[in-house]
Amino acid sequence: MAEPAASEDQIARLRLIRSENIGPVTYFQLLARFGSAAAALAAIPDLAARGGGRAPKLASRASVEREMEQVARIGARYLFLGQGLYPPLLAELETAPPALVAKGHLSLLDRTKVAMVGARNASAAACRFARMLACKLGEAEVAVVSGLARGIDTAAHDGALETGTIAVVAGGIDVFYPPENEARQRAIAERGLLIAEAPPGVEPRARHFPYRNRIIAGLADGTVVVEAAPKSGSLITARCAAEFGREVMAVPGSPLDPRAQGCNQLIREGATLIQTADDVLEAISPLRVRPFRQRELDYAAPAAAADPDERDRRAVAGLLGPTAVPVDELIRQSGLSPATVSIILLELELAGRLERHGGGRVSLP
Amino acid sequence: MAEPAASEDQIARLRLIRSENIGPVTYFQLLARFGSAAAALAAIPDLAARGGGRAPKLASRASVEREMEQVARIGARYLFLGQGLYPPLLAELETAPPALVAKGHLSLLDRTKVAMVGARNASAAACRFARMLACKLGEAEVAVVSGLARGIDTAAHDGALETGTIAVVAGGIDVFYPPENEARQRAIAERGLLIAEAPPGVEPRARHFPYRNRIIAGLADGTVVVEAAPKSGSLITARCAAEFGREVMAVPGSPLDPRAQGCNQLIREGATLIQTADDVLEAISPLRVRPFRQRELDYAAPAAAADPDERDRRAVAGLLGPTAVPVDELIRQSGLSPATVSIILLELELAGRLERHGGGRVSLP
Repeated sequence: MAEPAASEDQIARLRLIRSENIGPVTYFQLLARFGSAAAALAAIPDLAARGGGRAPKLASRASVEREMEQVARIGARYLFLGQGLYPPLLAELETAPPALVAKGHLSLLDRTKVAMVGARNASAAACRFARMLACKLGEAEVAVVSGLARGIDTAAHDGALETGTIAVVAGGIDVFYPPENEARQRAIAERGLLIAEAPPGVEPRARHFPYRNRIIAGLADGTVVVEAAPKSGSLITARCAAEFGREVMAVPGSPLDPRAQGCNQLIREGATLIQTADDVLEAISPLRVRPFRQRELDYAAPAAAADPDERDRRAVAGLLGPTAVPVDELIRQSGLSPATVSIILLELELAGRLERHGGGRVSLP
Repeated sequence: MAEPAASEDQIARLRLIRSENIGPVTYFQLLARFGSAAAALAAIPDLAARGGGRAPKLASRASVEREMEQVARIGARYLFLGQGLYPPLLAELETAPPALVAKGHLSLLDRTKVAMVGARNASAAACRFARMLACKLGEAEVAVVSGLARGIDTAAHDGALETGTIAVVAGGIDVFYPPENEARQRAIAERGLLIAEAPPGVEPRARHFPYRNRIIAGLADGTVVVEAAPKSGSLITARCAAEFGREVMAVPGSPLDPRAQGCNQLIREGATLIQTADDVLEAISPLRVRPFRQRELDYAAPAAAADPDERDRRAVAGLLGPTAVPVDELIRQSGLSPATVSIILLELELAGRLERHGGGRVSLP
């Protein structure tokens, strides 16, 4: 069979990821099982039926072609997981975005990258510190990654705007949020690099921010937290970085300052204390020669497991409940092969009868 | 031979430690070799002659009796290394003071102890933090040890005055330094515990402060540094604590504040970051059940090495230079037994021809 043209494959990939009930983990499993996005699209109705539900609404070719035209019109382009310029560190994530929309200097992706995050209501002193730190990291040819939020994010982008900064936004690449950062977002698309997981035009919502945070942490060799209260979003980004095996760094502050307590707590948990840009460079230096662990998307050899039978399906479905359990646990308790359990879960998910959680856990929706 | 009365033994111990050229390490070795302070005093002239110099001026019985009368008049008492109430943790030190002068509530020595040290010119916020921390530690039945200096020391003593504080002074127990702390020093002798290594009447000099710092760190299960600049005396105390195997803790601050940089650096090097009294209690809790490693002063079995001969003495003396070298290195290079090298070094030291340094190193004076 002839390999489809690159653009046909990309249309199929976009249709798959823009379809209902198909997140990054499912996307990856479908490609691994069916060898291509087109084959996965063709198989989905049948899979969903076996999972006991109606097939998810697949994104139409027309809607995806409209999106592609819009991306081109904006002057942006796509990066597809496992292809071309897609950032290798980000590709390591179990939840790596199947497609990114990017606008600006893609060469920044080749640099060592450090994420800088922190409180939106940070003190003036902390913003000044973040700006100086970002500037010095930029001068050392390190790209500074952040989320274009108010406070520390803004300071980090400003400090590194001349030398190299990457902004990851929670909505569409052409949606300006927060509104007062419109000029900054435009400037980064011109002089730095702007990245979005969502299609153009999407307004950011609360649930998008944790997804955005995983990309920030996943792109970077390490994450520096500057002034963050306990239980803040910045700490979630830091925990993502730790989970991805990246360096976690934090700028300390007085225990009397509530805005420093999140950072101090991170340091207590093992984050590297940062006082200067040199401290950051020292902390990430071993990673500069770190071997990439990019996952293989091996199209030539789809998983060879036989289709599961009804008894297997009932066994797995019977083990699921409203509490999220690790997939490993389902494999152990069902006595089925990992490949079989994986297919059954895929069927259930496509049928809208399964929810996936962090850390490879699943539950009833 | 009848054992000498306790008071006779204590007079001999005081004579030994108050003599010229006899520091804590030499004192310990003399007692280990000769079995008693009296026997060591008798042997010293001969040892010094073999070391090739004149014997050190020994403290007279009369001068020591005068000192003992003075200590009694002040209402203080002695604690002798290896005897009675002498603090076991302090006794672990290679440089444990052979005798301490103490006034106040000796029962505080039985508590878990935490040293708190920091900058003399600390910020008002840091002093307030230190006072609160000391107060809470005291309430948790932890004795707070410090050095009665201005700034953090003063705040620590004040915070724990009602609940239990131990002050170690650099001069004599009856000398008030700094002068403005006279009332505080008197209050601690009344309601806490005051400790001095020097005899009464001694004015503190610059060289006394590092000795005082080792006692602060040596008494305590752990040392907390609150606001300290790089290269400050507080960091020396922290390094002593680390060297003695005790917990080192530090209170962080903004990298923009020079007075926080010493503490931040300590945390970078592995000190536990402290935000609350609970953090301190958690850090030291494993030490509460820590087995004591008190050194034995085994009077019954003096070291059995034969006296060294002239060739051995020349060999060791020939290996010494103005640069401090570890005693282990001398043992290796001379090919002599550890006991023999130890005796030769003792002879040289008593003859004024050897200087001892930290970490078991020696040099020509």
